[in-house]
Amino acid sequence: MSEADAAGPSKNALKKAQKEAEKAAKKAAAKERELAERTKQQAAADTDVSANDYGDLPMVGSTPYTPSGTSRISFASLKAQDEPVAFRCTVINARSQSAKLAFLNLRQGEETIQAVVAASEKLSRQMVKFAGSVSAQSVVLVHGLVREVAEPIKSATIKNLEVHIQKLYIISKAEPQLPLQVEDAEQPLPLEGAEEVVEEGGRPRVALNTRLDNRVLDLRAIHNKAIFKIKSGICALYQEFLTSKDFTMIQTPKLLGAASEGGSNVFECTYFDRKAYLAQSPQLYKQMLISGGFERVFEIGPVFRAENSNTARHLTEFTGLDMEMAFEEDYHEVVDLIVEMLLYIFKGLRTRYSKETDIIREWASGGKNKVEDFKIPEDGKIPRLSFAEGVKMLREAGEELDDYEDLSTPQEKLLGKLVLEKYGSDFYVLDQFPLAIRPFYTMPSASDPKLSNSYDMFMRGQEIMSGAQRVHDANLLIQRCKGMDPPVNPDGPGLKDYVDGFRYGCPPHAGGGFGLERIVSFWAGVGNVRLASLFPRDPQRVMP
Amino acid sequence: MSEADAAGPSKNALKKAQKEAEKAAKKAAAKERELAERTKQQAAADTDVSANDYGDLPMVGSTPYTPSGTSRISFASLKAQDEPVAFRCTVINARSQSAKLAFLNLRQGEETIQAVVAASEKLSRQMVKFAGSVSAQSVVLVHGLVREVAEPIKSATIKNLEVHIQKLYIISKAEPQLPLQVEDAEQPLPLEGAEEVVEEGGRPRVALNTRLDNRVLDLRAIHNKAIFKIKSGICALYQEFLTSKDFTMIQTPKLLGAASEGGSNVFECTYFDRKAYLAQSPQLYKQMLISGGFERVFEIGPVFRAENSNTARHLTEFTGLDMEMAFEEDYHEVVDLIVEMLLYIFKGLRTRYSKETDIIREWASGGKNKVEDFKIPEDGKIPRLSFAEGVKMLREAGEELDDYEDLSTPQEKLLGKLVLEKYGSDFYVLDQFPLAIRPFYTMPSASDPKLSNSYDMFMRGQEIMSGAQRVHDANLLIQRCKGMDPPVNPDGPGLKDYVDGFRYGCPPHAGGGFGLERIVSFWAGVGNVRLASLFPRDPQRVMP
Repeated sequence: MSEADAAGPSKNALKKAQKEAEKAAKKAAAKERELAERTKQQAAADTDVSANDYGDLPMVGSTPYTPSGTSRISFASLKAQDEPVAFRCTVINARSQSAKLAFLNLRQGEETIQAVVAASEKLSRQMVKFAGSVSAQSVVLVHGLVREVAEPIKSATIKNLEVHIQKLYIISKAEPQLPLQVEDAEQPLPLEGAEEVVEEGGRPRVALNTRLDNRVLDLRAIHNKAIFKIKSGICALYQEFLTSKDFTMIQTPKLLGAASEGGSNVFECTYFDRKAYLAQSPQLYKQMLISGGFERVFEIGPVFRAENSNTARHLTEFTGLDMEMAFEEDYHEVVDLIVEMLLYIFKGLRTRYSKETDIIREWASGGKNKVEDFKIPEDGKIPRLSFAEGVKMLREAGEELDDYEDLSTPQEKLLGKLVLEKYGSDFYVLDQFPLAIRPFYTMPSASDPKLSNSYDMFMRGQEIMSGAQRVHDANLLIQRCKGMDPPVNPDGPGLKDYVDGFRYGCPPHAGGGFGLERIVSFWAGVGNVRLASLFPRDPQRVMP
Repeated sequence: MSEADAAGPSKNALKKAQKEAEKAAKKAAAKERELAERTKQQAAADTDVSANDYGDLPMVGSTPYTPSGTSRISFASLKAQDEPVAFRCTVINARSQSAKLAFLNLRQGEETIQAVVAASEKLSRQMVKFAGSVSAQSVVLVHGLVREVAEPIKSATIKNLEVHIQKLYIISKAEPQLPLQVEDAEQPLPLEGAEEVVEEGGRPRVALNTRLDNRVLDLRAIHNKAIFKIKSGICALYQEFLTSKDFTMIQTPKLLGAASEGGSNVFECTYFDRKAYLAQSPQLYKQMLISGGFERVFEIGPVFRAENSNTARHLTEFTGLDMEMAFEEDYHEVVDLIVEMLLYIFKGLRTRYSKETDIIREWASGGKNKVEDFKIPEDGKIPRLSFAEGVKMLREAGEELDDYEDLSTPQEKLLGKLVLEKYGSDFYVLDQFPLAIRPFYTMPSASDPKLSNSYDMFMRGQEIMSGAQRVHDANLLIQRCKGMDPPVNPDGPGLKDYVDGFRYGCPPHAGGGFGLERIVSFWAGVGNVRLASLFPRDPQRVMP
């Protein structure tokens, strides 16, 4: 203790005491206010007849809970009835019309419905206020009555019904500020060439990159549900058809000990104390399986291409629909089967996914560039042109090109247009490609040694698959390897097992590989394969 | 000309002339012999009535060819008839009994048949000799008559018929010396512990590594066809069931911009001027899709684990059957669906693949260690034990273990045995695992904060799937991340998009991931998951 202190309260000590007294008084006042507020709230709660009928649910799963026994239903089974129903859904938007009335738009999958919350003796204004302020994209549990409406509701897909909400609980709250509005994502992409966000009818047109950066929100857009339903459906149709034709589904390795199909365009990995490479296709493995006695195989799996192509139809990782089969006398047996398969898929898309197709095409059309229907000749006769015929058609249309050179992308598109005009088909086969532009495992043609038994298939003038009869003879294969520019080493670690497979007896075989994302995007007419990949990968993008 | 020359022939010149005369004489003699041989051959050919009925076919596809119009049939449709048939098949073996008689064993898929080549007025001894010398595993085209036999043929699967060959052409010749005999591959593996090749009944037991080094030949063994038919079948059953329950098939990216599930056990790749990482599971992506509004998703795809585990049940690349679904009130809704799915798969395996199952189990049994049938309770009631109950059963059986520690592999196997004894089921569910041994995205339990809403499923006492309710709340997820040891960074590049997904409203959800190769190998009882992978990958093997 200092002298001054001992002598009695100093000036400083007085000031301190004063301050403390002020503080205490403020504290007491605050406490009083708090108490008053609490009592008021309590009183409000006591008078809130709906107090138990709205609010946040405790976290499902990690809190003790007895299942309610109320079974929840889907929008598909909604109908006007006197019994209340319960369902989980997403809030598209909520707005208070007045202190007594709020409206919500609710979604389940592709269906949306309007809901009203109206104050009454049994439903408090507090609950109306709560309902009107639920943040968009929150997941909620609704109890209510389903009623028919006199006037069709424009803003919902279910036009003849609305829900009169009795209880409304939040299962999972969305933050009020989202980086991408789902309703904006449902607007079309900016017009071609327009990189920036442009206003159209009050809503912005969000650029592709912004969408992909916020893919979780973007995927909630209704056209995205449709795109990926169709993608899933194509896999199912592919598998159904090939299974009915005695194909075995296979999984070939994606980690390879050597870059077997050529050193460029391959991703390199560390593999313990070694290197490994990501498979650029299941090509060599599916052929080894043909030699291994599997007559017919198919795969649905990822394909990796370290190709620095930043076009609308290239991805560094895509889903390959690969298949390979032994044949008897002529590789056209295989072409026939593949064409039959595609017709099965197109037919399946028309019968099972016409609604989804319409949703996507409407979105992609953007009100201006209408996406045309995908045309197939009525009689199912798919145009099959030889490469030479294709070249001839292009020359007649004014193109200058060589007999044995590959087509350019614009030439491919032009040929697609010419074929559509001449044969009325958006799908066609181009056969007997020049040998020089095909891989080493391609079988040379019987008619012209500069041609090969290889084929591409096209949708809307763009390639969706590449295939061929393969060389099934080890000596011819070695000769082909050595004749490549640059030469391929048939004795190297990546090819030895493959080449050896043809020394053990192997039936003639052919096959092909489809890019699934291309089929989806060309079918729907969305233009960019990224839109057909859940989380697309390209040279610029490997996230999210 | 030299003087000596001009004077007349020198000694040297004489010698030279002599030598040349000798040479000429030898040449003439050789030519005469050659001519004589040729004439003889020609005569033989002239008298070979079968000259056009056997030999090597020109290479199918690359030689001008008119299809024969003879349709080829499958062994399944063979029956005794007067009309000759044609088919392509593989020669298992060929032997000449005498100059007039040769036998061949022929295979198509899982079926084998005996064929005879008998000399007659219409079939030459030369052809018999040719037939008897066809190298094993060659692919041939056979024309012949199908006849019933009096005595059942032991050495073939088709016991009541044999083929009387009329024409025999080689489509693809196998080298006479193969690195692995397919008939040896059809013998069981060496007994456990025996690494070396041991002789058993005249045929060697080939070690697994030798088989995998020569996988193309190994895969021709009949049990391998059965294994991969079953694997393909499980994929189809899985897809069928989930599609019927409104699941969407998805493809999530395998190339990730960051090692999101934890830095260890992940393969690193070069990605243009960056690094990328191979997905250790579709976990985070399938959850992002739940947040993206996909209520129910499943995937069949490769999973990469850079784990240096050299056990019989680990692979560095395997096929994951992953699924995830939103639920309403209780994660056991998801457990119920998964159990129903597995029962559907097991039932499907029994009804569609009993023949294949028998083939594999007979092979795996090796005449000694009989593989038991896979037991499921008659009433379909699958045992579901809490982890605590499992621990109790193990303690009663004499094991010492903690309440919140993971089971060891021997304990898992023992528990499987105990469950089989008590409930008569080779399949069961273990629920409510300790939280500490599960990943950060696992939902803590409502009953005990040291437990979690997670579950494993077991076949024959070995884990085939791991699953859980996931945390669907961003704050709890961040708390879980930070509480891990070592802590996980929820703001890092690998997790940010994932965590953000739960800020946008996300329904409660649960799911799981199966190892397809484990289901196949535990179902069939083959013991080693490598046998259920076409081209297995482990820390030691990344080829072929």
